[in-house]
Order: sequence, then C-alpha cells, then structure tokens
Amino acid sequence: MSRLVLIISGPSGVGKSTLLGELPREEFYFSISHTTRDPRPGEIHGRDYYFISKETFLDMLQRGEFLEWVEVHSHYYGTAKSEVDRAFSQGKHLLLDVEVFGAARLKGKFGPQAVSVFIAPPNLESLKERLEHRGTESEDKIKERLQRASLELAFLPFFDYVIVNDDLNKAKAVLLSIVRAELCKPWRLTLNF
Amino acid sequence: MSRLVLIISGPSGVGKSTLLGELPREEFYFSISHTTRDPRPGEIHGRDYYFISKETFLDMLQRGEFLEWVEVHSHYYGTAKSEVDRAFSQGKHLLLDVEVFGAARLKGKFGPQAVSVFIAPPNLESLKERLEHRGTESEDKIKERLQRASLELAFLPFFDYVIVNDDLNKAKAVLLSIVRAELCKPWRLTLNF
Repeated sequence: MSRLVLIISGPSGVGKSTLLGELPREEFYFSISHTTRDPRPGEIHGRDYYFISKETFLDMLQRGEFLEWVEVHSHYYGTAKSEVDRAFSQGKHLLLDVEVFGAARLKGKFGPQAVSVFIAPPNLESLKERLEHRGTESEDKIKERLQRASLELAFLPFFDYVIVNDDLNKAKAVLLSIVRAELCKPWRLTLNF
Repeated sequence: MSRLVLIISGPSGVGKSTLLGELPREEFYFSISHTTRDPRPGEIHGRDYYFISKETFLDMLQRGEFLEWVEVHSHYYGTAKSEVDRAFSQGKHLLLDVEVFGAARLKGKFGPQAVSVFIAPPNLESLKERLEHRGTESEDKIKERLQRASLELAFLPFFDYVIVNDDLNKAKAVLLSIVRAELCKPWRLTLNF
C-alpha cells in the first residue's frame, strides 16, 4: 500500500495544530521538528518539538542531518532525516508541519510523491483575532506573525491543495478526502491488468 | 463556486452506472449521450440515452452538434454540446460517462479543468462474472465486451484517478472524496488575501 508524504503549511494561528491533532495516529506519523526556540507553556520536548540549543542545531546542520531547515524569528527549525526514516518504517503517512520555505524544500526533495496542503484562514481578520486570543504573545510578536502570515499566504497558489479552516470538522473531513483522493492516483496503485 | 467536469470511464460490467446512480442529483448533472444502439430492457429514452437513428446521428454530426463521438460495436455514441451547456447553467458538476476515446477527447477539450476518473474492477475475473450474470448478452457479445475491457484498461494510467470498485459504498465515498479534494485546488478557489 502506497503511503503519502503530506506537507502541511499555513500561518500561525490558523488552527493547524488542532486540525492535525484530529488525524488518527495509527495512520499518520507526525514528523517532530527540531527547534532552538523556547517551549511555549504546555509544549513537551519529543512530542511538540525537539527543543535543542543553537549549538546542537548548528552541529547537526554541519553533519547534514537535516532534510530541510529554516530560520524564523531568530530561531532555527529543521526536519531531521531520521524522522522521515522512522515514519516510512512504520508504514504510515508522513505528516510534515512546516512553513512555506520548508514546504518548498520538501516538495523539491520528495517530488510529486509529496502532497502539499496549505491551511488558510477564512480571512486575515479571523487570523488576527485568533493570534490575539491565544494570549501567549506580545503585541509586537503578533504584528510580526501577521507580517509573516502575509508572506506565507503569498505562496498559497504553489500548493497542491488549499483547505480554508472555517470549521474544524469540515476541515478534517476535507483533509482526509485529499488523502483518500491522492491514494487513487494511478501511479500509486498496484493493479494487475 | 467552482464546478467540476468529471469524466468517468470504465469497462462494461464494472458497476459504473450503479455507482454513478448513487451520486446526489442536486449536485451532479448527468450528461445524457446520444446513441444509435437499441435500448436494453428497462432503459428509457431521455434518461439513460437519447436513442436516435443512425441517420439522425450523422445529421447532427455533420452540423457539428457533438462535443465528442465514437463508434463502438457498430453503434454511434456522442455527447451533444447542448448537454454541457445545460449542466453549467444549472451550476452543477458535469458528469460524463464515456469510454476511453471519448474521455481522451473530452480531456483535450476541457483541459485541466476536467477531472478524469477510471472505474476499475478488482480483477478481470470479477468483470467476466458480472457480464455473465447480467444475462442480457450472448456469449459472443460478452467475449467482445471483455476484449473491449482490455483496451479500456490499457489506458487506465492516463486518468487522474482510479477507483477500484470492489465495494459500492466505499467506491461512492472515494468518488465524493475526489470531488471534495479537487475543489481544494488553489486555482479553483476564490480567496481574498
């Protein structure tokens, strides 16, 4: 059975984590990124991220251990190659939650096998509201994230699919539909005719 | 809201008609083909086909009234342009049930807007069984249809999607998933960012 590489992008505050958290873990392997930023309240090392020092990150980078990496808000984020191997060995769909530069790099690495999905807010206002209600960020940080969101949204047309997240259950159903549809691509099927 | 042109192909006996009959008529407009073959028991003019004489068909052909047409088993089949206009004016997805030559022509006419879906049997044996159980055809006709099926199956890799019809409900869900996924293509969406 063919497995998918799912590249998921979308601006901060779009509800991406909640949406992806709804997907069944038996079918989807969530790639855990390495990051040099501090954990937010409730975030756990080895579950949400591998929280590492800048020195460790740069060491890993030099040893070529990252499939893709990027610097955002003065912090490094990267997908270790070991995460990808782990997903495939378990026979699960690989789920990669990355920003647009990472998405572009991963699409470049995996080719058409990878399916890129952009999670979009219904509009910019709702995104601003969500960032403000999160309450973990200063006003400056929110402004920075909104500017970042504009950049992310600019690359939306490059994605294979776009899900407008105005309803969690609907968005989840659509994401599972995309997976189901992609598994029907003739080149993914093994048929005996 | 963007509407899809769905080109559906698959060999006789694969359960295509049953599957398509399950789709909601409020969302899908079923293109009705013109044909010069005789109606099978239970088939109704204007519902299953427009049953017309060879002379009428050739007249329409000469007047350029067909979007695509083909000759199979010494009978003509064609999609009238008027059917397509009718579908679009109702704001529904256009559903075209055609054999592979028609599918190729329609894909050529509509371009990437059109989504081609091949309905495949789990294997050739099950297809043979279904044709025999239908009981409306002579042994020679069944043999002819099986040869035709091999030809159709040869072009399966050209389709955007392939649904293996081993379970009606599953196949229906997959078809609706394909529709849902295709509606997430960024170039089909109207977004204000």
